[in-house]
Amino acid sequence: MDSPAIGRYPVPSLSELPDDIRARMLAVQEKAGFIPNVFLTLAHRPDEFRAFFAYHDALMLKEGGLTKAEREMIVVATSGANDCLYCIVAHGAILRVYAKNPLVADQVAANYRKADITERQKAMLAFALKVALRSIELVESDFDKLRAHGFSDEDIWDIGAITAFFALSNRMANLIAMRPNDEFFLLGRLPKK
Amino acid sequence: MDSPAIGRYPVPSLSELPDDIRARMLAVQEKAGFIPNVFLTLAHRPDEFRAFFAYHDALMLKEGGLTKAEREMIVVATSGANDCLYCIVAHGAILRVYAKNPLVADQVAANYRKADITERQKAMLAFALKVALRSIELVESDFDKLRAHGFSDEDIWDIGAITAFFALSNRMANLIAMRPNDEFFLLGRLPKK
Amino acid sequence: MDSPAIGRYPVPSLSELPDDIRARMLAVQEKAGFIPNVFLTLAHRPDEFRAFFAYHDALMLKEGGLTKAEREMIVVATSGANDCLYCIVAHGAILRVYAKNPLVADQVAANYRKADITERQKAMLAFALKVALRSIELVESDFDKLRAHGFSDEDIWDIGAITAFFALSNRMANLIAMRPNDEFFLLGRLPKK
Amino acid sequence: MDSPAIGRYPVPSLSELPDDIRARMLAVQEKAGFIPNVFLTLAHRPDEFRAFFAYHDALMLKEGGLTKAEREMIVVATSGANDCLYCIVAHGAILRVYAKNPLVADQVAANYRKADITERQKAMLAFALKVALRSIELVESDFDKLRAHGFSDEDIWDIGAITAFFALSNRMANLIAMRPNDEFFLLGRLPKK
Amino acid sequence: MDSPAIGRYPVPSLSELPDDIRARMLAVQEKAGFIPNVFLTLAHRPDEFRAFFAYHDALMLKEGGLTKAEREMIVVATSGANDCLYCIVAHGAILRVYAKNPLVADQVAANYRKADITERQKAMLAFALKVALRSIELVESDFDKLRAHGFSDEDIWDIGAITAFFALSNRMANLIAMRPNDEFFLLGRLPKK
Amino acid sequence: MDSPAIGRYPVPSLSELPDDIRARMLAVQEKAGFIPNVFLTLAHRPDEFRAFFAYHDALMLKEGGLTKAEREMIVVATSGANDCLYCIVAHGAILRVYAKNPLVADQVAANYRKADITERQKAMLAFALKVALRSIELVESDFDKLRAHGFSDEDIWDIGAITAFFALSNRMANLIAMRPNDEFFLLGRLPKK
Repeated sequence: MDSPAIGRYPVPSLSELPDDIRARMLAVQEKAGFIPNVFLTLAHRPDEFRAFFAYHDALMLKEGGLTKAEREMIVVATSGANDCLYCIVAHGAILRVYAKNPLVADQVAANYRKADITERQKAMLAFALKVALRSIELVESDFDKLRAHGFSDEDIWDIGAITAFFALSNRMANLIAMRPNDEFFLLGRLPKK
Repeated sequence: MDSPAIGRYPVPSLSELPDDIRARMLAVQEKAGFIPNVFLTLAHRPDEFRAFFAYHDALMLKEGGLTKAEREMIVVATSGANDCLYCIVAHGAILRVYAKNPLVADQVAANYRKADITERQKAMLAFALKVALRSIELVESDFDKLRAHGFSDEDIWDIGAITAFFALSNRMANLIAMRPNDEFFLLGRLPKK
Repeated sequence: MDSPAIGRYPVPSLSELPDDIRARMLAVQEKAGFIPNVFLTLAHRPDEFRAFFAYHDALMLKEGGLTKAEREMIVVATSGANDCLYCIVAHGAILRVYAKNPLVADQVAANYRKADITERQKAMLAFALKVALRSIELVESDFDKLRAHGFSDEDIWDIGAITAFFALSNRMANLIAMRPNDEFFLLGRLPKK
Repeated sequence: MDSPAIGRYPVPSLSELPDDIRARMLAVQEKAGFIPNVFLTLAHRPDEFRAFFAYHDALMLKEGGLTKAEREMIVVATSGANDCLYCIVAHGAILRVYAKNPLVADQVAANYRKADITERQKAMLAFALKVALRSIELVESDFDKLRAHGFSDEDIWDIGAITAFFALSNRMANLIAMRPNDEFFLLGRLPKK
Repeated sequence: MDSPAIGRYPVPSLSELPDDIRARMLAVQEKAGFIPNVFLTLAHRPDEFRAFFAYHDALMLKEGGLTKAEREMIVVATSGANDCLYCIVAHGAILRVYAKNPLVADQVAANYRKADITERQKAMLAFALKVALRSIELVESDFDKLRAHGFSDEDIWDIGAITAFFALSNRMANLIAMRPNDEFFLLGRLPKK
Repeated sequence: MDSPAIGRYPVPSLSELPDDIRARMLAVQEKAGFIPNVFLTLAHRPDEFRAFFAYHDALMLKEGGLTKAEREMIVVATSGANDCLYCIVAHGAILRVYAKNPLVADQVAANYRKADITERQKAMLAFALKVALRSIELVESDFDKLRAHGFSDEDIWDIGAITAFFALSNRMANLIAMRPNDEFFLLGRLPKK
């Protein structure tokens, strides 16, 4: 049986890709054991690919007041609100790995209010969901609520910017009909050996 | 009287900016006569600045089946749906200039169905608004409707990707409380001398 | 080239109109330099025309605690929420003229929270938007919030009644596909000579 | 025990009213046996009162392709969608009387699709609800659907304009907290003796 | 003339029903004078019928801190929010009978905020509507608001569980197109002789 | 460390439960290896417990045109739309087991349009989501669409009734803050040994 398509658009073969993009894919494959479909499907447009991952790295790999797990929580909660299959499954896996917690991703994707996270993290996700769904209504008191939990203004930029970036990413995934790799569904659910 | 702030976050002075970012700003200023606040406010985070404009240029400056005015129509219509003040005003100005039409931006921002545009352009904006607001519901027949108007699959990617990029941009503008430069309000409304 | 239609329904010629309606139109034309399309399109139904403008005048020309510019702000903000092209453009122009401010109309139409207006005016528009969009949820504390800003109960009636009247007006404009006169787009944007 | 207030604003006594307004009230009282609270509460503002009822009469008492019962159906269905207590109860009573049907008002207020009305009337109410709730989305094919049921363009104006007028009326009733007269609840529910 | 159908699915005759179901219907008929259509239409599936009424009785007939009228208020308010014709009309009738009040059902179905009920009852209905429409957002402070009105945690379970049961019931009535018996429309509207 | 609470209400110990309820729990434990929290939390109210599971069994264990996996798909898709954490996780597990497919539950919970299911199953879920979210809008053509896929009217009752039952169940789970057992998260994700 054929594998299901990983997206609506043609997927370039590794050999026809520009060197920098192929190098990035091989590096991911080396580390994760497979190439996530977001790399393969976005490579259809090399310039957009480069900008997308430059933006991603600037937000997700930087230093700052948010842990890597918290950054992924923002992705999973807002992608859940946008019902983006690819991002829920792929970033849910990454969240499980970073948080070393097999339950938290499914919790946050459905309802962060019931998740096994701190009150500070719940405030962070409430803000993120407002940015995702009703950003016009942001007012100063929304910022104050986060400051009361110890978030700096730079942290708040991070929360809002990660949400904004995945507003883009969710729509691209739905446009392309990006399929999550099978590997993501199980990743981080079993105790490390 | 002091000028109103152009955003919630500190705005770096030109002299403290990295060379590449300052160069880009000076080039824009040379061409437009002023520096749009999106450059000044996003420069607070140089890496994100670079990724943002690389993405922007990849989508808005590329060749393809959409005219520059059509690309801006997508920005204005979806920013109108998201009630993003900065993007409506700034890209409304750019749309007026590219379309050489002083009316079309206000029309498209309020209700593209009543705008002085073609049926093909209305179909393009109906698709863009679906990507902006309900991308989970995209199905094959949405693509077929655009193909019936002569859009290629690459054009459709452009429509969806521009919409996705401004989903990010609208949220950043609302997060930062980005203020449109006064110049944009009038730009493109008067006949060229 | 033919001018675009100004509405879906037949527009009577001035000569076939009842005297009182023609007189009103000529008076407006004398003052504004053109006849706004709301007069021409609604004249298709003389009795409704008379009631419409009697209602309009009772609300917009009366004395009271709201300035003329504030009354127009209510129109622009609620018409923005209803995406009514005619009212945003036509009353946006009137607002610019009354407020002697070329920026405020576009700001209020998109997001009053970011407009160059007072906190008192923002409270007024928050109430107006609740009347426009969720009037069933009005409770006593909504009135108290306005009283705290110094609005009298008569002022509050004005705010609510202007909003209610333009709920009617927005729907009529969308029903008729009322086209804003080209003149409105530029009105009030240039410094008075 | 005191009667509950019929609204948030002062209600003038008959003796202090302008003659024309008092005359209208007495005429209604003569005919109906009581004065509906919409007259009493709106009389607080005589000029608005006059415009309101002039508009009402122009739409509800005119000749045309819609029966009186059909005009009231539009009021009840759209007031149901807006959850306006006064209009549902008062116009529900009038609808029962005109339609000589004790069931139809409660049916139409809850869900016109299940009411004992014709397919033509269901199409009329579907259009009215679109004007009430999403008038920006009105397109030519909405008009064609009504024409296919034999509605003329003048009938369609009536449907839309009645809906628009009660968009105003519903918001005024909610603003004022207008209380339906007790008499309306039972009116038209019992067989005429 | 034929009577209108009472639902989309076949309705069994009394004689073909299982004994327990027939017995329940006859008991209701004895007491009310007619068999409500919810019994006749759900009898198409005897096992579901039994579970439905066992659940109903467990919630509506039990002892506790809520009066029978208050239980019916919850049904009417949430069925109003769900626009369920059968439940609004049938339970509206029952509410009028229990509350000995001919007005309260129509008030609560349209807008509980304007009904002739206590502040405690308004708090109860605000909670019920949150369970009906946005149960994901329930947080501890919602429970605290009810406790402040003297509701015990068992009372709160009752409020939530009645709402949840009629979320089921409303959807079944809409699925089946369950028609309210004509008798319900008038029940409880006339003074007891 | 204490285990997190499995719900807001007291959970009875097995020994204090009525015999029939304890017997059911032990039977489930025997089969599944653990007692799902829906049993433990609902046992706080024995009469409601009995009605709940009688209803559940009548719908989920009956014969008919829907497979067991299809019944669970309906639960997972509608619980996803209602963001009910317990039902997504618990019934997602059951769906994986019945469908012998480790991916389908996460797919259906996020967006059934992109799931690895048949067109017939997608039509089934489109109908279920309409019952869950907008049941007032159900019309005859919705039934016709399912009939075109070979569903009988009894199958359609099943689809609608399962959806209606989980509208209840989702709200109870959110009311109680029902916590999914840890076991469910992994169940059905690994190949059977």
